[in-house]
Amino acid sequence: MNADRVYNTLRIPNDSKLALVVLDGLGDIATQSTGFRTPLEAARTPNLDMLAKRSALGRMIPVAPGITPGSGPGHLGLFGYDPLEYEVGRGVIEAIGLGIDLKHGDVAARANFCSLNAKGIVTDRRAGRIDTKVCEAQCALLAGKIKKIGDVEVIIRAGKGHRFVVVFRGKGLEGPLSDSDPHREGLPIATVKPPAKSAKAAKTAKVIAAFYRQALPLLKDCKPANGFLLRGIAHQPKIPLFTERYGLKAAAIAIYPMYKGLAQLVGMKKVEGSTTVQQEFEAAIDALKAYDFVFVHVKGTDMAGEDGNFDAKVKAIEEADAALGQLLPEVDVLAVTGDHSTPVPVKGHSWHPQPVMICSEIAGWDGQDRFTERCANLGSLGVFDAKYLIRYMQANAKRLDKFGA
Amino acid sequence: MNADRVYNTLRIPNDSKLALVVLDGLGDIATQSTGFRTPLEAARTPNLDMLAKRSALGRMIPVAPGITPGSGPGHLGLFGYDPLEYEVGRGVIEAIGLGIDLKHGDVAARANFCSLNAKGIVTDRRAGRIDTKVCEAQCALLAGKIKKIGDVEVIIRAGKGHRFVVVFRGKGLEGPLSDSDPHREGLPIATVKPPAKSAKAAKTAKVIAAFYRQALPLLKDCKPANGFLLRGIAHQPKIPLFTERYGLKAAAIAIYPMYKGLAQLVGMKKVEGSTTVQQEFEAAIDALKAYDFVFVHVKGTDMAGEDGNFDAKVKAIEEADAALGQLLPEVDVLAVTGDHSTPVPVKGHSWHPQPVMICSEIAGWDGQDRFTERCANLGSLGVFDAKYLIRYMQANAKRLDKFGA
Repeated sequence: MNADRVYNTLRIPNDSKLALVVLDGLGDIATQSTGFRTPLEAARTPNLDMLAKRSALGRMIPVAPGITPGSGPGHLGLFGYDPLEYEVGRGVIEAIGLGIDLKHGDVAARANFCSLNAKGIVTDRRAGRIDTKVCEAQCALLAGKIKKIGDVEVIIRAGKGHRFVVVFRGKGLEGPLSDSDPHREGLPIATVKPPAKSAKAAKTAKVIAAFYRQALPLLKDCKPANGFLLRGIAHQPKIPLFTERYGLKAAAIAIYPMYKGLAQLVGMKKVEGSTTVQQEFEAAIDALKAYDFVFVHVKGTDMAGEDGNFDAKVKAIEEADAALGQLLPEVDVLAVTGDHSTPVPVKGHSWHPQPVMICSEIAGWDGQDRFTERCANLGSLGVFDAKYLIRYMQANAKRLDKFGA
Repeated sequence: MNADRVYNTLRIPNDSKLALVVLDGLGDIATQSTGFRTPLEAARTPNLDMLAKRSALGRMIPVAPGITPGSGPGHLGLFGYDPLEYEVGRGVIEAIGLGIDLKHGDVAARANFCSLNAKGIVTDRRAGRIDTKVCEAQCALLAGKIKKIGDVEVIIRAGKGHRFVVVFRGKGLEGPLSDSDPHREGLPIATVKPPAKSAKAAKTAKVIAAFYRQALPLLKDCKPANGFLLRGIAHQPKIPLFTERYGLKAAAIAIYPMYKGLAQLVGMKKVEGSTTVQQEFEAAIDALKAYDFVFVHVKGTDMAGEDGNFDAKVKAIEEADAALGQLLPEVDVLAVTGDHSTPVPVKGHSWHPQPVMICSEIAGWDGQDRFTERCANLGSLGVFDAKYLIRYMQANAKRLDKFGA
C-alpha cells in the first residue's frame, strides 16, 4: 500500500496546536573561517536550549543528497511535498505572494530590474537594489503601456526593492521556460527558450520576446534600472491541499511574498501585516485561535548567510529565539528548522542537511542541551527526508492512529 | 536491479547460527516524568553492556516515519517484509498463533467477549477481562451449537482471557471487512461491512451477520460476557517464506499466540512449551541445534510500557538480560531490538525509532559501552528501515557474498 494512503487512513482529528518555525537557511557549517563553530553554536539561545531538553533532534535532506534547493523546493519539501514530484516555478510563487489570483494556464515570471550599458550588457543584475517606490513607478509605467501581447493579457505587479512579477494570461501558454537572466554580470539579456516538443511553451517564448521588444524601449531613460531579467518562468501546477493531506487547518505568517506564496500554493491561509519577527510570532499566536497549524517564516538567517555575515546570522537567530518564547505556551507540537542551509562560508544556499528539532510532551529528550547542527547529529531522528517532517509532527500531536493490530 | 533479487544472488550457505531477540516495545523516551532517562538506561544489564562492546548500533523505523505499528506490522518489518506491502489482519495472526491450520481462502477474525446491556449497547468491551476458563467454556458452547453457516464452516478457538478467534472456511470468502467492534463503550455492536466492489467480501459479511444472529441468543444468559466483538477480519495473505527469502531455517519462540502466529506466517517453525523468559532462551538454545535462525520474543517490556510502569519495564529488561547470557556462546550473530517503541510516558505503542544492536565477531565496536536509545543514536547503523535488519544479520554471518567484481 502506498505510504501516503496509509497516513491518510490513520489520521485522528483532535484539537492540538502545531507550529512550524522556519529560520530560512538556518543550517551552517563550522570551518576555520568561522572559528570552527556555527552561528547556532555561537548564538545565545535560551529558548531553543530549553526546548532541546524536550525534543527529538535530527537533520533533514531538503530534496536529495547533495542537492541545493531554492526556496521553492525547500519549502515544498518542508510542507511534505516531494520537491522532485512537485515542481513550482519561482514566478508562480512570487505572483501568488503578491496577491495575484493565478488562473489555470497562467504563466508567471519573477522579474528583477537590472542595469544595462549602451551595448545591452547587464552591468548590475539588481540595478543597485533600487527602492521599492522606484520599482513601483516603473512597473506602473510598463503596465500602463503594455496590457496585451496579441491575445495574451500581461499583468505586472511590483514587489520589494528591484523585484517584480509578470504574468502572461491567455490560451495555449505553458512553462517552464529558460531564464532571461544570464545569472552574472557582463552578459546580455538571454533569450527565453522553451523546452523541445512543447508548442505551448514555444508560443509563450514568442510572447515573452515580444514583451521585451515593447518594454525595453519604455525603460530606456530609467537609470539605473533600464532593463529587467526574468527567472523561474512557469505555470501554476496542481498540488494537493495541505488540509486534505494532513487534516490540519493551516495559517502562514511571513514577511516576504515568496514564502506567503509558497504557503498559499498548498492552501495555507496567509496572515498579512507582520513587518518584524516579533510581530510574526504575535500573529502566529493569534492565528492559532482559528487554525490547527501555523507556519512562521523568519528570513533574516538566510539573508545573513547569503551575505557571508556570521555576526548578522547569530543576531538573526537570537532575535528569533527571543520572539519564539511567547509562542511556546500556545502550542502542543513545535518544530524548529530551516528550509535548507545557507552557510556563512558558502554565501549561498547549500545541500548540507539542516538541523531540526521537534518538541512535544512525548518527543523524548535526546540528551542534548542545545539545538545546534552538531547536537542534531546525535539525535534520535537521524538524517531523514524533509518531506517526513509534518508526519512526525502529526505523530507527536497524537494525530496518527496505530497502523495494523 | 531489484534489491531483493540481488540479495538472493549473493546468498552463501554456511553453518552460522543467528538469533533475533525481540524485547517487545523496547524503545522508550526520556522525559521529565521518567527523570530524563529511559528504562534501558536505568536497568542493570551486564550482558547487554558486554555485547555493546562488540556490536554495531542504530535505530530502526518500523514502518515509515511517524507511523506507530501494531504488533503485526512491527514484526513483519523485523522479519524483512515491508509492512506497507504485506498487510496481515490480526485475526489471521491470532488464528495461526492458536494453532489453527489456516487454509487459503479462510477468513479469520479476532474476537473479544464483551458485556451488553438490555438495549444491546456495549458496556464493557472486554467483559471485565473474564478468566480464560470462562472464555473456553463459552467458546465450547458456541462451537457446539454453530458448526456451519450455510455452506461455510465456522471454527471457534479460545485464546487468553476474554479473547478468542473465529475462522470462516468455505468457497468465495475474502477479507478485509470492517470491525464489529465499535472501539468504545456506549455504542451497539457495529455491522461488519465489506469494501466496495468485492463480491467475496460481501458474501463474507452476510455469513458474519448470520453468525451473530445465531450466536448472540446462545450467550444471552452468560453474564458478564453476553456479547462479542470482531476485529481484524481478513483472509490469509500470500507471503514469501522466510527460508526462501534468506536461506535460513528458522524457529520461533514466544509465549503469546500473536507472535508465534506472526512467525509461522512467514514459515518459521514455532517451538511450544515456554511459559517463562528463562525457558524461552533454553528453548532457543535447543532449537539452534536444528535451525540456523531463532527468533525469541519477550513480551514483558511491552506490557510494562503499555501500563506506563517504568519499574516493571526495567525489571523486564533485566530479566531478559539475565536469561540472554546462556544464549551467547551458541550464536554467531545476535540482534537485540524491539518491534517498535512502547514508551512508558506514552502508555502505548509509538513511532519512535527503536534501538537495535547487532553483535558478531565482525560487527565492530561503535565506541558505546551500553545498549540504550541514546547510545544507539551514536551508532554506525544510523536510523534505518527495520526491513533491512535481517540483511545486516546475514552479512554479519558471512552469508552474503560480494556484489560485483
